[in-house]
Parts: sequence; structure tokens; C-alpha cells
Amino acid sequence: MSIVPPELRAFALTLADAARGETLPRFQSGCGADNKNEGGAWDPVTDADRQGELAIRGLIERHFPEHGISGEEFGVRDGSSRWSWSLDPVDGTRAFVFGLPSWTTLIALLERERPALGIVDTPALGELYIGDEDGAFLLRAGAPARGIAVSGCAELGEARLTTTDPALFDAAGAAAFAEVAARCRLVRYGLDAYGYARLAAGTIDLVIESGLKPHDYNALIPLVRGAGGVISDWRGGQDYGGGRVVAAASEALFDAALALLGPAA
Amino acid sequence: MSIVPPELRAFALTLADAARGETLPRFQSGCGADNKNEGGAWDPVTDADRQGELAIRGLIERHFPEHGISGEEFGVRDGSSRWSWSLDPVDGTRAFVFGLPSWTTLIALLERERPALGIVDTPALGELYIGDEDGAFLLRAGAPARGIAVSGCAELGEARLTTTDPALFDAAGAAAFAEVAARCRLVRYGLDAYGYARLAAGTIDLVIESGLKPHDYNALIPLVRGAGGVISDWRGGQDYGGGRVVAAASEALFDAALALLGPAA
Repeated sequence: MSIVPPELRAFALTLADAARGETLPRFQSGCGADNKNEGGAWDPVTDADRQGELAIRGLIERHFPEHGISGEEFGVRDGSSRWSWSLDPVDGTRAFVFGLPSWTTLIALLERERPALGIVDTPALGELYIGDEDGAFLLRAGAPARGIAVSGCAELGEARLTTTDPALFDAAGAAAFAEVAARCRLVRYGLDAYGYARLAAGTIDLVIESGLKPHDYNALIPLVRGAGGVISDWRGGQDYGGGRVVAAASEALFDAALALLGPAA
Repeated sequence: MSIVPPELRAFALTLADAARGETLPRFQSGCGADNKNEGGAWDPVTDADRQGELAIRGLIERHFPEHGISGEEFGVRDGSSRWSWSLDPVDGTRAFVFGLPSWTTLIALLERERPALGIVDTPALGELYIGDEDGAFLLRAGAPARGIAVSGCAELGEARLTTTDPALFDAAGAAAFAEVAARCRLVRYGLDAYGYARLAAGTIDLVIESGLKPHDYNALIPLVRGAGGVISDWRGGQDYGGGRVVAAASEALFDAALALLGPAA
């Protein structure tokens, strides 16, 4: 049974709605030649990020002023409760700038620093992924919530692997990733958090990353676990301080990846 | 004025509808561990490809039996008319297999071998891009057609560049691409034909590729031109026989890219 009270779960969905109202209208707008003389192609993203986070923070401060908040844009606000929120209003900045719909909003609810509920919302795709100990679900506008589960893929030779950008690894990490990639059926780049969402939904089998920040991974942990997947740091533990994350669609696949990542971990 | 008669334009949209009816239901379905013992993770794609192309071919053969057809899956059928069709029912196979919505259906109408009308349909995104000499348009289900245009971005330093997979270049091509990429603001991979669609819609500025087949590029030419962009082979001509394509959001950007690609062209 999930430790997350139903009212906090419902409130988390409200937060996603509020962020969406700020980010989605700014997507695929004003990001072209008009801004060319001031490097301003970044502005729409900054603005979407900032306004999205402000909308979420405002709701939390009004309804649960005792909750802590940690957001990408506006930093940490300590709370007095065992509950706190970890926020990334626009994960996948490059996708956003390229007008590609795979950017997400990440919302995690933590109980005493431990991620208990995770939401990956994809406003431009109309898909919201939510997971906790009770399971993982995909919500589409106008459709009933659908339970989702990892593929169960157990062998590297059958696995669809993704990482956001292989250039984010250090030398040892890049070599270890290349070892894994050479054994997988297919590799694909550039998905950010959406890769974990599709792992939870069963169409990606393995995600290996480094350089992630807490607001990048906190929401992914309950989602991947709720869908029956495995997620850990590169040593198989829960110390994500180095920003290195592995998520897999089965224990067997996880073990196979970890064996190859070990030397770099 | 477009040389494409209105009834053929309408018919082209009907073809996209027919393909969508075969491909979309097969997306994000049955592509997981169930197939693991027979390398069958590819089957859903092959099936979507095959059934999508059969649906299109069937309509053309019934309504315009004199038209030629060239499709990725079922090859060439000679016609007696000046009109012929070039088809790729699922472009972006990897995206399809990863459950990512950027795969497309490509439909080109050619007049005496020259692409006159191009459609890039993205069934999973609900976006259909269509272009000819009269302009380029984005059609979304339930919304009025919207005219689209390239960004006009004129400098590499401000450009959003994409290519599907840098591993598809030969050594000289890879070096030339790297020269361009080093000067661009952002680079992104893995988009296949969707990259050209987003170039036509103004959120990507430059696409550089090699290894494309006629069914990959025929639909892109009228679309990019209709949106005010430039598209050519790496020498600036219209000889795509080598599968090398450059598309740009302005003449200035096109010239800057071509200057760097020249040594490899």
C-alpha cells in the first residue's frame, strides 16, 4: 500500500495541471528568427520553466505551507512536514527548443527525503505518467487511467536502450556505456525523462544516464518501481549523489547492465 | 500556382488517412518481451509498414490505375500517366519500435519524376504536414489548416541542427557534418523525416543527412519548399542519387552549410 494519502495524490495531479497551463502555451511559439540578435531563442524555455515552477510553488505554499519545496528554478524552501516536493517544470530543454513534444514536467512527492510518488507529465503529447507503490498509470485526456508495466525484457540482446546524450558521461562512463550499447538491439538518444516514462510503459527496456540532478530523477524512481521496473545508481544502490542512474525492465536485465557498468561505477 | 489538381491533393490526404488506419493501431502494441525468442520485436513494424503501404496502393490502383507507384515495401509499379506516387508507410522505424511518436508516413505525388506534392503525416502526434508550390500547411484533427513557414534563421551560430544518425555518414561526410555542428547552437538526433516537418514549421533550422532513399526524401522536397525553405543535395543541386540532403530555413543558412559540406560533396 502506498504511503501517499489520496488527497496528496490528487493534489499532485492538480500541480501538473497548473504547470501545463504555463508551459504548453509557450511551446512552439516565438522560438525562431525574431530573437536571433540577442541569443533569445532560449527565452521561451526560461519563461516556461520559471512560470511553470511558480505556478506549482504557489499552489503548494497556499495549500500545504508546511511542505518543503525543491525546484530547478527557484531552489529550496524548507518545510516543517515530513512531506516535500521536488520539481522540474521543463525537463528536456533541447526538445522544447526544437519544437519536439517529448519534453516533460517532473513532480515528485518525497516522504522524509524518500521519493514516494512520481509524475512525468508530457503536455505536448497529452500523456501523464504517475507511479507509487500501488502501481503505475498512464492518464490521457478524456480516457480512463490505464495501468502500465515494464516490458520484462530480460536480455541485453533484445533490449531497447536509451540515454539522453552520450557526451554527458566521463571517459570511464562512456566506455562502460559503449560496452552495454554494443550488446543491445537498438540504442536511441535525446529522450530525457520521457525515456523512463516509456520504460514504465513497456516500450523501452533500459535507460543508463549520468549527470542527473535530484529534480531530474526523484519523480522517476516511484514511477519506474510502480511499473515493476528496477532503478538504482550505477552500483545498484540508492545513492544518486553522483547523478548516475540505471533503470531496467527486469532484474535480469538490470544485473546484466550493472555487470558491465561496474568498472566505471 | 501548384500544378497539382485539387482532386489529386484531396486524394493524397485520403491516402494518408488509409495508411494511418493500418499503422496507428499497431503503435505501442505487442513490441515487448513476448517476442523475445524470435527476434520478433521487429514484426509489428514490418506489419505496420506492409499493411500501411498495401492500403495506399490499393486505393491508387482502384482510383488511378494509370498512376505509377514506388513504395518502400512493394517496389515499383509502372504507370502510363505523368503522375506517380512515392510511398514510405513508416519512416522512423526506430522511433516506432521505441514507442516514440515521431515516426511518420511519407507520401509524395510526382509529375514526370519531379516531386510536386509532399505529405508528412505523424499519426501518433495527430499532425499532418502538406506542401506544394502554393505553400505548406499543418493540419491537426479538429482544427483548421494552418499555414506554416520556416524560421528564416540565417546564421549557423543561431541554428538548431539535426540529423537522424551521425553514424550514417561516410568519413568525409562525418567530418564535414562535424564542422557544421560545431558552429551551430544546438544539435539533435533521431528525428528522421519529422526533422524536416519541424523545419517547415519553423522550430528547426537546418537538416543534413546522407543515405536517404527516394521514398525518404521525395515528400520532403515540396514540403520544405512550400514552407519557404531550401532543399538540395550536398552540391546545391537536385541530384539526390547519393542520398545526401541538406534542408535549410534560409538561403543564407543554406549557403553557409554548403560551404562547409563542399569538401565532402
